[in-house]
Amino acid sequence: MGLEAEPLAVPHPYWPRDLEIRRYVPNDRPTWHSLSFLFSASAALLTLTWLAAGWRGWTGVPMRTGRRLAICWFAICGFIHGVIEGWFSLYHTEIPGDQSFLSQLWKEYAKGDSRYVIEDNFTVCMETITAWAWGPLSLWTVLAFLQRQPHRYVLQLVVSLGQLYGDVLYFYTEYREGFAHSEMWHPLYFWFYFIFMNALWIIIPSILLLDAWGHLSAAQRALDAVKAKKH
Amino acid sequence: MGLEAEPLAVPHPYWPRDLEIRRYVPNDRPTWHSLSFLFSASAALLTLTWLAAGWRGWTGVPMRTGRRLAICWFAICGFIHGVIEGWFSLYHTEIPGDQSFLSQLWKEYAKGDSRYVIEDNFTVCMETITAWAWGPLSLWTVLAFLQRQPHRYVLQLVVSLGQLYGDVLYFYTEYREGFAHSEMWHPLYFWFYFIFMNALWIIIPSILLLDAWGHLSAAQRALDAVKAKKH
Repeated sequence: MGLEAEPLAVPHPYWPRDLEIRRYVPNDRPTWHSLSFLFSASAALLTLTWLAAGWRGWTGVPMRTGRRLAICWFAICGFIHGVIEGWFSLYHTEIPGDQSFLSQLWKEYAKGDSRYVIEDNFTVCMETITAWAWGPLSLWTVLAFLQRQPHRYVLQLVVSLGQLYGDVLYFYTEYREGFAHSEMWHPLYFWFYFIFMNALWIIIPSILLLDAWGHLSAAQRALDAVKAKKH
Repeated sequence: MGLEAEPLAVPHPYWPRDLEIRRYVPNDRPTWHSLSFLFSASAALLTLTWLAAGWRGWTGVPMRTGRRLAICWFAICGFIHGVIEGWFSLYHTEIPGDQSFLSQLWKEYAKGDSRYVIEDNFTVCMETITAWAWGPLSLWTVLAFLQRQPHRYVLQLVVSLGQLYGDVLYFYTEYREGFAHSEMWHPLYFWFYFIFMNALWIIIPSILLLDAWGHLSAAQRALDAVKAKKH
């Protein structure tokens, strides 16, 4: 073994326990750093967007609580997709051995799904599309609702269906692998990181998809009725 | 080795050449059987749907050529997703060793993408969602346009985005694996089966997605204008 030789595998906290991870370096920040960054940034964005959505100067039309919350959701999605998942999309090869803040966040999350530290092919592809398509489109959705643009519900539908399909594939591929990449039933890693955090992107996009469906169908029904009168 | 012993791997036409495929049995039907079934069934569906869409009895509103063709496309999608991809979704474990008609079709297609004879995890998940979600929804889209239902463009948008995202992931995962599951540059297997046949589900859904976007935004714009007048 020369000086250049690198160990192929090192001890790590990931599942399955015999997983080989090259150049893994354990986090040097405590877990609450990552978690509090994620939740306080999301809370700050929620507050700011809530206030922005309440400002009457945009269109003069007051917004209901549900709509304001939906806009806050898309702002948070823009941040999580664009920044956090964007980081994974760009640096997934380096994350296991890297100590930058967002890499440590991903090494922590990967305790609930080790596909994030082994460059799992599907995961990289899905996350890349999430970061670069649903991320910017989420922010466009925020703007579209604030300015009451005519395509606001189309954007809501597109982003929500994209998130839903990606997440269904995310759970489905892992289900077919017997949840091998997580410590099953672990309260924090399995239930909170893997199940709960991702279930949010099943439940909320499903509701918003149906909401957009209803609004767009109603608009089309109104237009069809106007056209039928003209005939 | 007892009588029960099965060979683990047998010679096969798939790529990479060292791929292990259990219980592979070569097709006993010529290739043109599969291809002519696919194309003649699609052509028959196209003709029938074309005629059905031309019938004035549905709504009395005449349909443009582009719209009639789009409806034909969704009928063909309903057949291909529901029947052909439905078969793969149900029998992907048996296909390599099975000689039923649709299994032979898949063994032929797999010469352009061997993920279909090795139960590739992403492929099975994506095809299952395509078969059981986009298949029935494609048929619903046909009906929705024939009956001018107010959610017809929402359905067009949902199905098209679902197909597009699934297909982008399909190409992207294989691109990241260096197109290892096909004989690169082979005119029939690589270019026609793998690239061309799947490129159709990138190009046509993209056009139909933009078309639905335009129609739904226009409907929303009209409704917003009516509401603005009332205020």
